[in-house]
Amino acid sequence: MRRKKIDKFQEEIGISFKNPDLLSHALIHSSYANERKMAKERNNERLEFLGDAVLELVTSTYLYQTYEKEPEGKLTKLRASLVCEPTLAMCARDISLGSYLLLSKGEDMTGGRERDSILSDAFEAVIGAIYLDQGLEAARQFIEVHLLKDVENKVLFFDAKTYLQEIIQGEGGEPLSYVLVKEEGPDHQKEFTVEARLGDKVIGRGTGRSKKSAQQHAAYEALKQYKK
Amino acid sequence: MRRKKIDKFQEEIGISFKNPDLLSHALIHSSYANERKMAKERNNERLEFLGDAVLELVTSTYLYQTYEKEPEGKLTKLRASLVCEPTLAMCARDISLGSYLLLSKGEDMTGGRERDSILSDAFEAVIGAIYLDQGLEAARQFIEVHLLKDVENKVLFFDAKTYLQEIIQGEGGEPLSYVLVKEEGPDHQKEFTVEARLGDKVIGRGTGRSKKSAQQHAAYEALKQYKK
Repeated sequence: MRRKKIDKFQEEIGISFKNPDLLSHALIHSSYANERKMAKERNNERLEFLGDAVLELVTSTYLYQTYEKEPEGKLTKLRASLVCEPTLAMCARDISLGSYLLLSKGEDMTGGRERDSILSDAFEAVIGAIYLDQGLEAARQFIEVHLLKDVENKVLFFDAKTYLQEIIQGEGGEPLSYVLVKEEGPDHQKEFTVEARLGDKVIGRGTGRSKKSAQQHAAYEALKQYKK
Repeated sequence: MRRKKIDKFQEEIGISFKNPDLLSHALIHSSYANERKMAKERNNERLEFLGDAVLELVTSTYLYQTYEKEPEGKLTKLRASLVCEPTLAMCARDISLGSYLLLSKGEDMTGGRERDSILSDAFEAVIGAIYLDQGLEAARQFIEVHLLKDVENKVLFFDAKTYLQEIIQGEGGEPLSYVLVKEEGPDHQKEFTVEARLGDKVIGRGTGRSKKSAQQHAAYEALKQYKK
């Protein structure tokens, strides 16, 4: 059963592991290990420790080579906006990482699969597993495809609402608004859906665990359209 | 003149650069670049940015593989004691890095060549240069030789006085003391020499820019003897 799921995840990320146990290890959240009274080193935190360092090197190298004329301060700022919990959680969602995680019953019931901190940590653990099993170059490619290829947009994400406002002001025309169109789930696991609208026209739609996050997603989706 | 110095430094570290300019770049402190009105990206901070990430990955990988049963928290703690200013400054001193640095006149006159922060940053910049010129494996070897080969001792360094006290208490015998035996240099550039003694017997001798640091060095030297 678990084997099947790991195989499916390997397909999802397009990497075939020599040792699939490593990938499996990357998906064990500490809550699950605790619930099963597994030894501490069996959860994914050691791999996260390693993956975090891989991510840092790959991202730093990329920024160093891409922004040749920027001083160190700018590179550090760019790296911080790429290697941060919400961005990594977004990357994790892109590969449906949440659905492959092993969580305790408690974490699972309170929305752990969608929690930024858990997703971001597990994404790093997966990077650690790829690095150990396939080497740095494979890890670099993975990070490039899932995080860096879209670097401008990813960096934009946090300022999406501000950027969108600026573009729209520049164009004149209808005013921008964010409209909450859906709110589902029990109190501890709410999901909000927000539309970004120009007058009546929907220009982006996003979901999130808070209204603010849903608005950010909606603005980001709208921006992507504008950039095309 | 400068070329000769760079050649000598390459000999010192046992690495022959394809592009010696990179190594030269790693030795330009921001104070020197400012004094000469060089562009910001010409100082060694971008290489330090990169070297820091290389150091983090190499150290993390080493710790992950060496301490297979330790939880993430322990690895993080060990890494912090290895990749920290005083330890890196110590490694920099082992390769006489200070004497190869380009500093502003002001920094030079106020003891910049011996300052932990400057040495530690330049050590990382050198690692960044090795990584770019020679690849990750060469950088790993450099870090292994200059930082990790002596990991137990390096981690010991900060607790050297405590450890030494414990060993000596365990043995019974003469009491341990630290005696200031020399104090040289002008006020802004003092160097202290301290001996660790057991009764009258000198068991370690260390120098430093403060009495505390000289005592730590002396205790550390004494510990190295005990470990043999």
